[in-house]
Amino acid sequence: MPDTLSDDQRSEALEGLDGWSYDAAANAIGKDFRFEDFGAAFAFMTRVALIAEKSGHHPDWSNVYNRVSIRLSTHDAGGVTDKDIGLATRIDALDPQVSA
Amino acid sequence: MPDTLSDDQRSEALEGLDGWSYDAAANAIGKDFRFEDFGAAFAFMTRVALIAEKSGHHPDWSNVYNRVSIRLSTHDAGGVTDKDIGLATRIDALDPQVSA
Repeated sequence: MPDTLSDDQRSEALEGLDGWSYDAAANAIGKDFRFEDFGAAFAFMTRVALIAEKSGHHPDWSNVYNRVSIRLSTHDAGGVTDKDIGLATRIDALDPQVSA
Repeated sequence: MPDTLSDDQRSEALEGLDGWSYDAAANAIGKDFRFEDFGAAFAFMTRVALIAEKSGHHPDWSNVYNRVSIRLSTHDAGGVTDKDIGLATRIDALDPQVSA
């Protein structure tokens, strides 16, 4: 099981990501995405699902029409680990067309 | 825009569905699904996404690994309408393999 990141480690890792922030209430890192419509949002979710399945690490996420909210936490470890930073990095690499 | 259902109409409609209940806080009807794993959960979500897109009515939903939580409400109408009952009926028709 990976170790949870310290506050400093987590802050440093977040600086290397694109628009992710720490959600203290969820003890997770999170990012909210907005797309042109539902089809674009679900296409993004499908790509994320494949990445998640391949990496064996899955998001907590929700969708309402063109909006997708992702929270990443390593439940077994009880917080944010390198697995979450890695998944966020791979999601960013999709370069999703986010309008807001 | 469809009219919202009265309490009686909504209760009667829920009786015709499989395991859906009224979520007063969300002013929506909801059902929680549990699958064998993430792949099964996302396969179900993909089928629901296609149904939603075809019907022009979309769910508010979230996923954590093998669990999918769906809430249906007609935002423009400010509550539960026949559009939500229709979408719930079509989701039930998928006969998803829910373990709990």
